[in-house]
Amino acid sequence: MTGFTKQYSPPGTSPGALVRRDPGSALDGQTQIEVVRYTQDEMRVDRYDEIAMVPMPDVQSETVWIQMHGPVSPAVLEQFRTVLNIHSLALEDILNTGQRPKVDEYEGLTLVFLKLPWITETGEIKTSQVSLIVSNNMVVSFIPDHDELFEPLRARMQSPSSRLRQSDSSYLFHALLDLIVDHAFPILERLDDDIQSIEETVMNSDPNSALNQLHTVRRELLVLRKVLWPQRELIGRLISRENDWVGKDLDPYLKDCYDHTVQMIDLVETYREIAGGIFDLYLSKESKRMNESVRVLTVIATIFMPLTFIVGVYGMNFSAVASDGTPIPWAMPELHWSFGYPLVWLLMIGITVGMIVFFKRKRWL
Amino acid sequence: MTGFTKQYSPPGTSPGALVRRDPGSALDGQTQIEVVRYTQDEMRVDRYDEIAMVPMPDVQSETVWIQMHGPVSPAVLEQFRTVLNIHSLALEDILNTGQRPKVDEYEGLTLVFLKLPWITETGEIKTSQVSLIVSNNMVVSFIPDHDELFEPLRARMQSPSSRLRQSDSSYLFHALLDLIVDHAFPILERLDDDIQSIEETVMNSDPNSALNQLHTVRRELLVLRKVLWPQRELIGRLISRENDWVGKDLDPYLKDCYDHTVQMIDLVETYREIAGGIFDLYLSKESKRMNESVRVLTVIATIFMPLTFIVGVYGMNFSAVASDGTPIPWAMPELHWSFGYPLVWLLMIGITVGMIVFFKRKRWL
Amino acid sequence: MTGFTKQYSPPGTSPGALVRRDPGSALDGQTQIEVVRYTQDEMRVDRYDEIAMVPMPDVQSETVWIQMHGPVSPAVLEQFRTVLNIHSLALEDILNTGQRPKVDEYEGLTLVFLKLPWITETGEIKTSQVSLIVSNNMVVSFIPDHDELFEPLRARMQSPSSRLRQSDSSYLFHALLDLIVDHAFPILERLDDDIQSIEETVMNSDPNSALNQLHTVRRELLVLRKVLWPQRELIGRLISRENDWVGKDLDPYLKDCYDHTVQMIDLVETYREIAGGIFDLYLSKESKRMNESVRVLTVIATIFMPLTFIVGVYGMNFSAVASDGTPIPWAMPELHWSFGYPLVWLLMIGITVGMIVFFKRKRWL
Amino acid sequence: MTGFTKQYSPPGTSPGALVRRDPGSALDGQTQIEVVRYTQDEMRVDRYDEIAMVPMPDVQSETVWIQMHGPVSPAVLEQFRTVLNIHSLALEDILNTGQRPKVDEYEGLTLVFLKLPWITETGEIKTSQVSLIVSNNMVVSFIPDHDELFEPLRARMQSPSSRLRQSDSSYLFHALLDLIVDHAFPILERLDDDIQSIEETVMNSDPNSALNQLHTVRRELLVLRKVLWPQRELIGRLISRENDWVGKDLDPYLKDCYDHTVQMIDLVETYREIAGGIFDLYLSKESKRMNESVRVLTVIATIFMPLTFIVGVYGMNFSAVASDGTPIPWAMPELHWSFGYPLVWLLMIGITVGMIVFFKRKRWL
Amino acid sequence: MTGFTKQYSPPGTSPGALVRRDPGSALDGQTQIEVVRYTQDEMRVDRYDEIAMVPMPDVQSETVWIQMHGPVSPAVLEQFRTVLNIHSLALEDILNTGQRPKVDEYEGLTLVFLKLPWITETGEIKTSQVSLIVSNNMVVSFIPDHDELFEPLRARMQSPSSRLRQSDSSYLFHALLDLIVDHAFPILERLDDDIQSIEETVMNSDPNSALNQLHTVRRELLVLRKVLWPQRELIGRLISRENDWVGKDLDPYLKDCYDHTVQMIDLVETYREIAGGIFDLYLSKESKRMNESVRVLTVIATIFMPLTFIVGVYGMNFSAVASDGTPIPWAMPELHWSFGYPLVWLLMIGITVGMIVFFKRKRWL
Repeated sequence: MTGFTKQYSPPGTSPGALVRRDPGSALDGQTQIEVVRYTQDEMRVDRYDEIAMVPMPDVQSETVWIQMHGPVSPAVLEQFRTVLNIHSLALEDILNTGQRPKVDEYEGLTLVFLKLPWITETGEIKTSQVSLIVSNNMVVSFIPDHDELFEPLRARMQSPSSRLRQSDSSYLFHALLDLIVDHAFPILERLDDDIQSIEETVMNSDPNSALNQLHTVRRELLVLRKVLWPQRELIGRLISRENDWVGKDLDPYLKDCYDHTVQMIDLVETYREIAGGIFDLYLSKESKRMNESVRVLTVIATIFMPLTFIVGVYGMNFSAVASDGTPIPWAMPELHWSFGYPLVWLLMIGITVGMIVFFKRKRWL
Repeated sequence: MTGFTKQYSPPGTSPGALVRRDPGSALDGQTQIEVVRYTQDEMRVDRYDEIAMVPMPDVQSETVWIQMHGPVSPAVLEQFRTVLNIHSLALEDILNTGQRPKVDEYEGLTLVFLKLPWITETGEIKTSQVSLIVSNNMVVSFIPDHDELFEPLRARMQSPSSRLRQSDSSYLFHALLDLIVDHAFPILERLDDDIQSIEETVMNSDPNSALNQLHTVRRELLVLRKVLWPQRELIGRLISRENDWVGKDLDPYLKDCYDHTVQMIDLVETYREIAGGIFDLYLSKESKRMNESVRVLTVIATIFMPLTFIVGVYGMNFSAVASDGTPIPWAMPELHWSFGYPLVWLLMIGITVGMIVFFKRKRWL
Repeated sequence: MTGFTKQYSPPGTSPGALVRRDPGSALDGQTQIEVVRYTQDEMRVDRYDEIAMVPMPDVQSETVWIQMHGPVSPAVLEQFRTVLNIHSLALEDILNTGQRPKVDEYEGLTLVFLKLPWITETGEIKTSQVSLIVSNNMVVSFIPDHDELFEPLRARMQSPSSRLRQSDSSYLFHALLDLIVDHAFPILERLDDDIQSIEETVMNSDPNSALNQLHTVRRELLVLRKVLWPQRELIGRLISRENDWVGKDLDPYLKDCYDHTVQMIDLVETYREIAGGIFDLYLSKESKRMNESVRVLTVIATIFMPLTFIVGVYGMNFSAVASDGTPIPWAMPELHWSFGYPLVWLLMIGITVGMIVFFKRKRWL
Repeated sequence: MTGFTKQYSPPGTSPGALVRRDPGSALDGQTQIEVVRYTQDEMRVDRYDEIAMVPMPDVQSETVWIQMHGPVSPAVLEQFRTVLNIHSLALEDILNTGQRPKVDEYEGLTLVFLKLPWITETGEIKTSQVSLIVSNNMVVSFIPDHDELFEPLRARMQSPSSRLRQSDSSYLFHALLDLIVDHAFPILERLDDDIQSIEETVMNSDPNSALNQLHTVRRELLVLRKVLWPQRELIGRLISRENDWVGKDLDPYLKDCYDHTVQMIDLVETYREIAGGIFDLYLSKESKRMNESVRVLTVIATIFMPLTFIVGVYGMNFSAVASDGTPIPWAMPELHWSFGYPLVWLLMIGITVGMIVFFKRKRWL
Repeated sequence: MTGFTKQYSPPGTSPGALVRRDPGSALDGQTQIEVVRYTQDEMRVDRYDEIAMVPMPDVQSETVWIQMHGPVSPAVLEQFRTVLNIHSLALEDILNTGQRPKVDEYEGLTLVFLKLPWITETGEIKTSQVSLIVSNNMVVSFIPDHDELFEPLRARMQSPSSRLRQSDSSYLFHALLDLIVDHAFPILERLDDDIQSIEETVMNSDPNSALNQLHTVRRELLVLRKVLWPQRELIGRLISRENDWVGKDLDPYLKDCYDHTVQMIDLVETYREIAGGIFDLYLSKESKRMNESVRVLTVIATIFMPLTFIVGVYGMNFSAVASDGTPIPWAMPELHWSFGYPLVWLLMIGITVGMIVFFKRKRWL
C-alpha cells in the first residue's frame, strides 16, 4: 500500500544479474506467451511455451505483438537477452516490478515501464507494472496480473478496418499507453465519489465514521500521484523523442495521452487539497462539538453546584442545644424561621435566574 | 463541484472515437446553430438545423462566426470532421467537456478549450467548457449552456463602427477570450465579499455559523484556481505563437487578457492565504472560548466542592450516644458548640476568599 | 483590505473602452494638473485645467514632468490618447486602479504601473496605484490620492546642483521609482515593531489580546507581499530592458532599487514565518493553559468527590429500628461506634493524602 | 542523529590544513591499507602499513583498488598529497567526514564523497562518509567504519569471468557507487514496515505508544532525504561529465544508479507524506477520544447534578415548628405528604428520561 | 532580532546620499584604521587617523589590507569616494548596515557585503555586516563591531611561509570570506545541542519549559537562513565571475566556501524540519496529557456522582407520619428494612464494579 514492493536486488549484487529476490517462489514458470501477428489483411494469434520458439518478425511485412502474461522468470528473460540482444539492466527492471515509470532508449529498441492502477474486488487501489519493449515492427508487453486488461485492444484489433490494423507497432504502442493512462479515470471517479460522500458526512452529521475513510482516500491519492507525475514526464519525453520506430503522425495521439495525464494530475492535486480542507473542517467541527459539550457541562455545574451547596447547608445537623443543655441561638436559626423554606427556594431560584441571565449575556445559552 | 465531469471514454476505447459516455441521453440533438457573417459594411445572422447546410465562408471577403449553442451530439461533430477536416481527437475533446484549458494547433486551424466560470441562481460557482475553432476567416464557438453569455458581443457587433466589425476573425477570437476571462471578475468580487463578511464574523462574534461557509469559499477558490492557472499558460502560448490567422496587432489585446489572468491568479492566491488565516483565527478563537469555559468550570468546582464537602460533614448523623446508651464525646462535638454554625460559615467564607485571591493571582478571574 | 478594488470593466465590454465602473461618481473632474519643466539652468512650475492646454515638450531641450493628482476621469484620459497617441488599453489600466505592478512597452513610450503602500492616520495599511508614462524627455505621473508624496522630489528639484536637475527624464523616473519602493520601509518598520510587541505579549503574559492583532499583521504582510513580488520582477525587467529613453548610467540606480525590493521581500517573508511561529506559540500556550485548568479541576474533583460521597454515606437516615419496632443491627452501626466520627476523618485524611501523593508522582501537582 | 558531525575546522583556520578537530584522539593510526591489483587474468591482494610503500600502478596494464579502512589520520593523508598530488582542500574533506555528497573534479583525478546509510545493531540509522578517489586505472576508497561493506564486491572479484575483472577502474567505481546507493533499500524496507505498523496501531487501537516511534521515523526519513537528494544530483553530474577515466559504456550503469536514487527519493517523499498523514490521524483520533470523554462527563454530570440537588433539598432540616413552638406550615410540607417520596422518585425519573431523550436527540448518546 | 535594522534612508532621499538615519549618534568618529602592507618578504602594520593619510598601494609590488574597525561615519566614506572613486550608492550600503549579502561589480573594484553571525555573551545570535572592497592589490574591510574576529588571519599572516603572504589580494579576500562563512559552524553546533536537549525534554518528561526555548531556536534558524541563502548565491556568482583582480587558482577555494555554505543550508533546513517535528510532538503530547486528565476526571465523576446521588436519596427526611399523624407507608420504607443499609452498599459496590468493568472495556483504565 505504501508503494514499496521489496523487489530489489540486495546491495552489492552485480547490476543486471537476473535474480528474483525470492527465487523458487510460486511465481516462476507461469508466463503465458501469446503472439499476435497482423497486417491490414491478415491477423493470426498463436500461443507458445517458450520465447525461443517464437519466430522473429520478418521486417516491414507484418507487426508482431508478443504478450507475456503472468510473472516472468529470470530464465524467460535470459532468452530475451539472447534473442533480442537487450541490455541485462533493462531486463532486471522488467523482473523487479517496483520501478518508477520511465523510458529507456537502446539502439533499435525502446523500453517503457508504466504503472497500471486498478481497483481490486475489495475496493483497494493497486498498481501493476506494465513493461513494454517497442521496436520497428514489434511490441513485447509484460503484465504480471490483471490479464484481461488488454481485451478491448484485442477486440478492436479483430476488425480489419480499425486504425490498429492499418498502422504499425508505434500505433499499437500508443494504444497500449492510452489504455494504461486512461485506467486512472475510473479510479478518479471512485475517489471523487468517496470525497463527496465524506465531505457531506463531515459537513452535515456525525463525522467520526468518516475519519479512517478520509485517511484512506488521502493515501490512495498519494499512490496515484506517485504514478501520474513520472508518467507525465515519460510521455513528455516520448513526444520530444527521436526514435526510428515511431512516425510523426503518432504525435497527436501522444499529445492526447499527455493531456489526459495532465488533467489527471490536476484532479489528483485538487482532490488532495479538498481532502486536506475536509480534514481541517473535521478538526474544527470536532473542536466546536467539544466546545458545546464543555459549555453544557460548565452551565450545568455552575448552576447546580451553588444550589447543592445551599441545600447542603440546611442539611447540617447543628444542634440548637449544647451538650450541656443550654440553648444555642446561633445554631441555624433559619431552620426555625416561619418563611425559612420558601426563602431558600427564593434564593435558589434567584441564583438560577441570575446564572441564566449571565450565560445568555455571554451567549453561552 | 470537485471539477470531475465523468465525461471520459472508457479505458481502451479507440482514441478519437466520438462516443458520448451516456449515449442517447437527453443531451443529444438540441444543438442550435446560429451563423453570423459580417464584413465592415454588412452583417447577416442565420439559423441552421444541420451543420452541413452552413455554406463555408468565401476566403477573405467576410468573417464567419458559427455559434453552436447547447450540448453537441457526436453526429454533429462527425459532420465537422467531414466539412472542416478536423482531427477526431480534437472533436473528442469538444464532446467530453471535462477538458483542462488548452490550445491545440492543427494546420490552418487552432482549437482553444476554455473554462467559463459562472454563478448559478442559487449562488453556486460552476464552470462550463467553451470550445473555439479559429481559422483565417472563421470562428466556431461551442458552449453547452449559459447561452446568453455572448449577448454583449452580439450587441457590440451591431454597430458597423465597432472594432469587431472592422477586424477579422482573430479580433473576434480575442473578444471571446476576453469575455470568458473577465467572467471571473464578478466571481472574485462575490468571493471578496464572502471572505470579508466571514472574517468580520469570526473576528467579532459567534463564528460557528461561518465555518461551513468558509469551507465552501475555499472550495470555490480551488475551482477558480484550477481554471485560471492553465488559462494563463494558454494565453501565454497564444502570445508567443506562430499562426497564420492572427495578426501582430492583436498582441496588446492578448497581453491585456494575460494581465487580467495574472491579476486574478494573484487575487485567488491571496484569498486562499486569507481564508487560511481566517481558519487559523477561527481555530484559535474556538480554543480560547473553550479555555474560558473550562476556566469558569474549574473556578466554580474548586470553590464549591470543598464547601459542599464541609456542609456534608455536618450533615452526618453520628450519634452522641452509642447503641448501648453510653455517651460518645468524639461524635461530632462541633454540632453542640455554641458558635459551631457561625464558625463553619467563617471557615467556608475563608476558603472562598482564599480561592478567589488564588485565582486572581493566577489571572483566572 | 483584500486588495480587490472592484474597478474592472464588466465582462464583454470592449477592451480599451474608457468607462469607469461607477460613472458619474464623486471621483470625476477633480484631477489637478501640475507641470514642471526643467533644464539644469531653469525650472518652471505651471498649473493647467485641461491636458490639451499643456504644451508638448520641445525635443531634447528640456524635461517635462506632468503630475496628475487626484482621480482621473475618462475624459482626461481620452485627451491623452489624442495628444500622446497612447494605446487605449494602457489608458484603461490607468483608469481602473486595481492593476498588478507591471511595465508595458509601446513605441517611444513606457508605461509603468506601481503600487505605493502607505499608512493611514488610523494605522491601516493601504496601497495606491501610481501610473507613470515615461518617454524621451517627459514623465507623466498619475496618483489618485496621497498627493504630498512627491514633495521630497519637488524639494530636491529646487536646487540646480541636484542630480535630478542635471539629468533627463530617465533619472526623474528612477527618482519616482525609488521613492515609491522605499515607501515600504516605514511600513516594514511598523510591522517589525508590531511583531516584536505581539511576540513579547505571547511569550510572557496573557496573549488573548494579541490574537486579532496578530491576524491583522499577517493580513498586512500579505498585502505588502502582493505589492513587492511583482514590483521586483518589474524592476528586474527594467534593468534588462531596451528602451531609447533610458541611459546606461541609470543602471546602478535601478540595481539599487532592485536590491531594496529584494531586501524588503526577504523581510516580509521572514516576518511571515515569524508571525506563523508566534501563532504556533500562541496555540500551544493556550493548550498548555487549558491543560493546567483541566488538571486543577481533575485534582479538586478527584479529591473531593470521594470525600463528599463518604460524608453523604453517614448522612443517610437508616433507622436502627424497623417499622415494626425490632432493632436492626446492620443499620449503620458505625454511627454508634465510639470512634466512628474520628475514624471517618482518618479515612478521609488518608484518602486525601493518598491522592496528593498519587498526583505528585504523576507530576500533576 | 541530526546529521551534524562537529568535524569542521575552527573558523579562520587556513583552508586545506589537515587538522582533525580533536587531534590525538583514539581515531588516529588505525587505518588498514589493503590493495587489490587485478587484470582479467590475475588478481593479488596485499596489505601495507604505510601508503608510501604502496607501489603505484603501471599505466594501463592493471587496475589497482586501494582500500583504506578505519579512520584516517592527517599524516596518512599528507602522504597522499605527496604521492598522488591531490589538492589539500580535497584531502581536508576526506578527513572531516561531515561532507555533503558531492563530486570534485581535478586534473586526472575525480573525488567523490558519498554517504552510506546503515542500520546499527540497536536499530538506529547512521550514515558514514565513503570517499573515493578515481583515476584512469586506480580507485582509492576511504571508509571509516563498517568495513565488511565491500565484502560482496571482493567476492564477485574472485571470479575471473565477472564483469568487474573484465573492466577497468570506471566499472569498479560504478560497482562501489551502486553498492552504496543500494544500501538505502534495506533501510527503506524497515521504514516501510515501521510506518505500516504505526499506521495500523493508530488506525485501530491505542495509539499513544506509537507517538515517539512516529517521531523517530520522521527523523530518520529526514536523514535519508538529506543523503539522497545530493546523491541524485551527484550521479546526474557524473552522467553528463567529461572525464578521461570513464568510458561511454558505463552510462547505462550510472543511469541505473540514478534511477535507483530517484526511486528512493520518491519513496522517501511518499513516506514523509504518509507519516504526516498518520500524525494528522493521530491528532484527530486523540481529539475524538477526548470529545468522547468530555461527552460522557457532561452527560453524567447533567443527569446527576439535578438529581443530587433534589435529594439534597429533601435532606434539609427545616423545622415544622418555630423556635417558639408555633407550627410552620411552609416548612417542607412535602415531607409529610402521603405520596411525597414516590413523587420525588417520579420527578427524578422524569428528569432522567428527559435528559436521555435530549441527549439522544443531540446524538450525544 | 527580526533582522530589521532600521538603517534605511527616508523615502525620497536622494539615492547615494551618505546620511546616517540617526546622525550625530554615538556611533560617529570611532573608526579605527589599521593598514597591513605585505609582500612575501615584508609585512608592515600601521595605524592612521584619517583615510586620506593612507598612502595608496604601488601597483603590483605589495598587497594592502585596510581594516576599518568600528562604525564608519559618512565623513569617512566621503573620503573613500574621493580617493578610490567608488560609486556613492555602494558607500551608502556600507553605511546602512541592514544589507542583504550581495556582490556589486564596479570597474576595477568589487564590493562584497556579507553577514557575519556570532553569539553574544548572553547566548543570543546576532549578525554583523562585513563590507569588503576588493581590487587588484588591495582589500578594504569594514566591520562595525566584534573586532577580534580577524585575529586568526593576522596571526597566520605573521608567518612568511603562509599561503596568505605568498598570494595576492584575491587570496586575502578568500581568507576573509572563508572566515566569515565558517563562523556559522559554531552557531550550528550550539543550535544542534539546543535542539537535541529540547527534543529529549519533550520526548521524555515535562516539556513545558522547552516551549519558549523551542520558539527561540526556530527564530535563530530563521535568522541564520536569511544570512546563508543569499551568501550561497553570492559565492556562486563569484565563482562564475569575470574580474581582473582574481586568479583562476582561487577557484578551488571559492568552491570550498560554496560547499560549506551549501552544507550549512542543508543543516539549517534539516534543523527547521526537526524543530517543526518537535513542535508537533509537543502539541500531541500536550493533547495526550490533557486527554489523560479529562479521562481521570470523567472516570471519577462517573463513579462518584451516582453514588453520591444514592446516599443523598437516603439522606432525605421524608416523614413516616403525615402532618395529621397518619402513618405513610410509602415514605422511604427502605430505611426501615432490616437489610436496607447493607443492600445500599451492595448496590453501590455493584455500580462501582460495573463502571470499572465498563471503563476497562473502553480501555479508559
